[in-house]
Amino acid sequence: MLSTMQDVPLTVTRILLHGVRVHGRSQIITWTGEGEPRRRSFAESGARAVQLANALHDDLGVRGDDRVATLMWNNAEHVEAYFAIPSMGAVLHTLNLRLPAEQLVWIVNHAADRVIIVNGSLLPLLAPLLPHLPTVEHLVVSGPGDRSVLDGAHARVHDYEELIAGKPAVYDWPELDERQAAAMCYTSGTTGDPKGVVYSHRSIYLHSMQVNMTESIGLTDRDTSLVVVPQFHVNAWGLPHATFMCGVNLLMPDRFLQPAPLARMIESERPTHAAAVPTIWQGLLAELSARPRDVSSLAHVTIGGSACPPSLMEAFDTLGMRVCHAWGMTETSPLGTVSRPPAHVMGTEEEFGYRLTQGRFPVGVEARLSGPGGERLPWDGESAGELEVRGPWIAGAYYNGPDAEPLRPADKFSEDGWLKTGDVGTISPDGYLTLTDRSKDVIKSGGEWISSVDLENALMCHPDVAEAAVVAVPDDKWGERPLATVVLKEGAAADFATLRLFLAEEGRIAKWQLPERWTIIESVPKTSVGKFDKKVLRRQYAEGELDVTEI
Amino acid sequence: MLSTMQDVPLTVTRILLHGVRVHGRSQIITWTGEGEPRRRSFAESGARAVQLANALHDDLGVRGDDRVATLMWNNAEHVEAYFAIPSMGAVLHTLNLRLPAEQLVWIVNHAADRVIIVNGSLLPLLAPLLPHLPTVEHLVVSGPGDRSVLDGAHARVHDYEELIAGKPAVYDWPELDERQAAAMCYTSGTTGDPKGVVYSHRSIYLHSMQVNMTESIGLTDRDTSLVVVPQFHVNAWGLPHATFMCGVNLLMPDRFLQPAPLARMIESERPTHAAAVPTIWQGLLAELSARPRDVSSLAHVTIGGSACPPSLMEAFDTLGMRVCHAWGMTETSPLGTVSRPPAHVMGTEEEFGYRLTQGRFPVGVEARLSGPGGERLPWDGESAGELEVRGPWIAGAYYNGPDAEPLRPADKFSEDGWLKTGDVGTISPDGYLTLTDRSKDVIKSGGEWISSVDLENALMCHPDVAEAAVVAVPDDKWGERPLATVVLKEGAAADFATLRLFLAEEGRIAKWQLPERWTIIESVPKTSVGKFDKKVLRRQYAEGELDVTEI
Repeated sequence: MLSTMQDVPLTVTRILLHGVRVHGRSQIITWTGEGEPRRRSFAESGARAVQLANALHDDLGVRGDDRVATLMWNNAEHVEAYFAIPSMGAVLHTLNLRLPAEQLVWIVNHAADRVIIVNGSLLPLLAPLLPHLPTVEHLVVSGPGDRSVLDGAHARVHDYEELIAGKPAVYDWPELDERQAAAMCYTSGTTGDPKGVVYSHRSIYLHSMQVNMTESIGLTDRDTSLVVVPQFHVNAWGLPHATFMCGVNLLMPDRFLQPAPLARMIESERPTHAAAVPTIWQGLLAELSARPRDVSSLAHVTIGGSACPPSLMEAFDTLGMRVCHAWGMTETSPLGTVSRPPAHVMGTEEEFGYRLTQGRFPVGVEARLSGPGGERLPWDGESAGELEVRGPWIAGAYYNGPDAEPLRPADKFSEDGWLKTGDVGTISPDGYLTLTDRSKDVIKSGGEWISSVDLENALMCHPDVAEAAVVAVPDDKWGERPLATVVLKEGAAADFATLRLFLAEEGRIAKWQLPERWTIIESVPKTSVGKFDKKVLRRQYAEGELDVTEI
Repeated sequence: MLSTMQDVPLTVTRILLHGVRVHGRSQIITWTGEGEPRRRSFAESGARAVQLANALHDDLGVRGDDRVATLMWNNAEHVEAYFAIPSMGAVLHTLNLRLPAEQLVWIVNHAADRVIIVNGSLLPLLAPLLPHLPTVEHLVVSGPGDRSVLDGAHARVHDYEELIAGKPAVYDWPELDERQAAAMCYTSGTTGDPKGVVYSHRSIYLHSMQVNMTESIGLTDRDTSLVVVPQFHVNAWGLPHATFMCGVNLLMPDRFLQPAPLARMIESERPTHAAAVPTIWQGLLAELSARPRDVSSLAHVTIGGSACPPSLMEAFDTLGMRVCHAWGMTETSPLGTVSRPPAHVMGTEEEFGYRLTQGRFPVGVEARLSGPGGERLPWDGESAGELEVRGPWIAGAYYNGPDAEPLRPADKFSEDGWLKTGDVGTISPDGYLTLTDRSKDVIKSGGEWISSVDLENALMCHPDVAEAAVVAVPDDKWGERPLATVVLKEGAAADFATLRLFLAEEGRIAKWQLPERWTIIESVPKTSVGKFDKKVLRRQYAEGELDVTEI
């Protein structure tokens, strides 16, 4: 029996039209450094988005599902592109300006981008790549920057403002299928080629509604959100779309992401909310303690990307800012969990513990834990398994180029279509996720899993240990066993037997999980973003470069 | 270009599973009169919903899209039915227990209900109808009530608790198409047969997300919502579904809807939110002034059904309760607008004015105003037209029985599929709706509309006028003109010329809108719910029963 409801598609176009009509007064404030911020109402930016769509269609010949890329900071023009491109039926492709050049080249070619909208300040980054980007026919440059670096480029160069000037403020938006592609974003795995995630109009719309639900971020037109998380990073966690739904004002830092300008913009524009990764906030706290400013407006801070250290969370509490963890990934749009503690622990000692978890799943995200043998594990807060998720804004495949079938690698998607997140952790009986390892860092020993992170944390509690990294190494009997690599504090001389005993003491680590293989290293190798680079340790071990003791 | 997102349907089943797993601790509290309320966690009620589905399937043979009706108060068992029936693929049909007997009979037969779940206290209402309900094969009786009235009924009678006792707590829920029917509700128009609106899984899911968005009702698991609006009235404004999404506790009054027990349950259970029509609150305020109680928990009150008089809103403000208007109808699921004032007027004199409007449209509801000639009117706060709406939880047709095509009467649906609401009003430039008339009460004079409500309000400002109703009467020259029917205050003796002059004074009413036809009546005829019954006045005029003066 069919319902008698109207069949209205969930599209980015509808978010744009709503933002302009009902929340036209709300603002996008773009920081400009020393000068006055650029203030543009939703009505104005919406009208400019319409002009941009007209220009892309009429002057640049964008048609159908052409990919239009952006290489931009967070600013009003980037928001305009967010709405113009999907609404006309084309696909917004946000380029991560922090990627190595060869990855950027690979991604643009894989997506076959026809147009790149680029901030003038990023031209020095883009210009050297252009000879390797044969599909790119047009460059649209926004904002100041030396355009002479583009001399000789094969692509036609346009100025953003000149391009949209005088264009009509109406566009005959097509009626789109809500499952059609709206935007895409590549993940840069540590191994293999980058993988493209293609968001649909439907997934963006539903995700935006979830962001605006009270249990998630839940802002209104009384709020201003400082969006530090880049727009090229999973659609800035969906905030530009979500804010147009509810009229939340946007404060965009553009390229001014250093602690001092962030502190200044908070003091002067008084945002009530901010979203960023922990490293940004570490710097901000240091800045504030060196040069105190009034940041009292900032009541809520959403932190994602990686876990917020407890000390950082406490420092925020002291400043009157409430930190809320969120977990997600490019493949999850990204909202996967939000750490709002349950009602019954509010104001108790348990509350802080809940806030340190990754949080609880919203209704749109189904979750399950998969054990070493692929078996389902209970939500008991103890059984650790790989997190698998399912939902209308979760990827079920990767993009495989304009003419190829979607990719569904078996290590990324289960046979029944769930996303294997690669994250290992536990879920409490009341649905709170605690992540411990990446699955590739877990030690698979005799059909059981050993958490490398648990071993590292326990080792680093020893007074003589400065740092410790634990990696899986092959073992004839058990498949894999842990190798403990230890950096001792200056002047310390702990021996391995003592450290092993320390791990076993007070039930820190179960006996069968204790490492047999130990080595002292000078320092733990790190990735460009400061995470332990365990690939290097595994390679060093495989090539016999480490001096390993077995005990 | 297709997205790479998972294709996961939006279903009531997913809301149920989420509520049980992630918000299992939240409660449904059902008032029982003098005794202790019946407290059941979402986990318990969810498990009972699974048992109910098993019983309906195994014992009662419910299959496919069979209609299962409920004739119930607001209580935990009704919530269980809300989730069990749609999740198994069947269709929940909530019966309005306040309808006249012949309408109830018509509706049950039209929907071809196979099962009715009924509260024991409502058996005296149902029993006399049963001989006229041939499609009903099973009655499931919940709660106390004299069941002997069912003796001799053709339908098999079951006890709710006995039926579900011992049933499995798992059910192999089918994968449903999100556009499939989930629930239905009939509107009782003043003319013609009742009309069935069939909600889909998709419409319920999206509507529930909207209810939980901060700009709408936006509650969390720290809240308890007192749901006075009946579950048979547009799914209790979607609250049972919405609360299972976010873990909001439900306080259900069952049959105890009188002011005294409502006041008692507020004092003892301390809800933070309540939803009801204005008449309920009028009674509650009178009760509280006669017998004061601590109702300080109740911070937010959502009022819909009809506009909240300013005096009532002020009385609530005095008690520390914030009233928020919402507008909707059976055909809109019902959330159409919510009157949250815009940020820039908060704390100013304008704020109250915004709160008196019907409110602003959420992203899921597109709106337009249609003038007397069908032309689109601007959102200027002045042009009055019939409100038409479009969106994924708005009806696009009516149900026409098990085997017939959906009905799309031209006075209810536009050619391009929008719902004609029958409500006449204005929309401000910032998207706030102010309703004035029902379109059938508007006077269509020479291609322009005259608001009967504006004339009535202006007339009732005159010190000699107790009440006034204005209706359209046929006019050879203008098509229709207003007839003013006036009830004078005791001892007053205003003449029509004076009243007409009063209307024209200070620009209250434009000259061309002033009535020429006047009559004094004893009292304005009223409907059973206390609204002006203009049908009666129009008939009296047509039949020459009124003593009309033309001036």
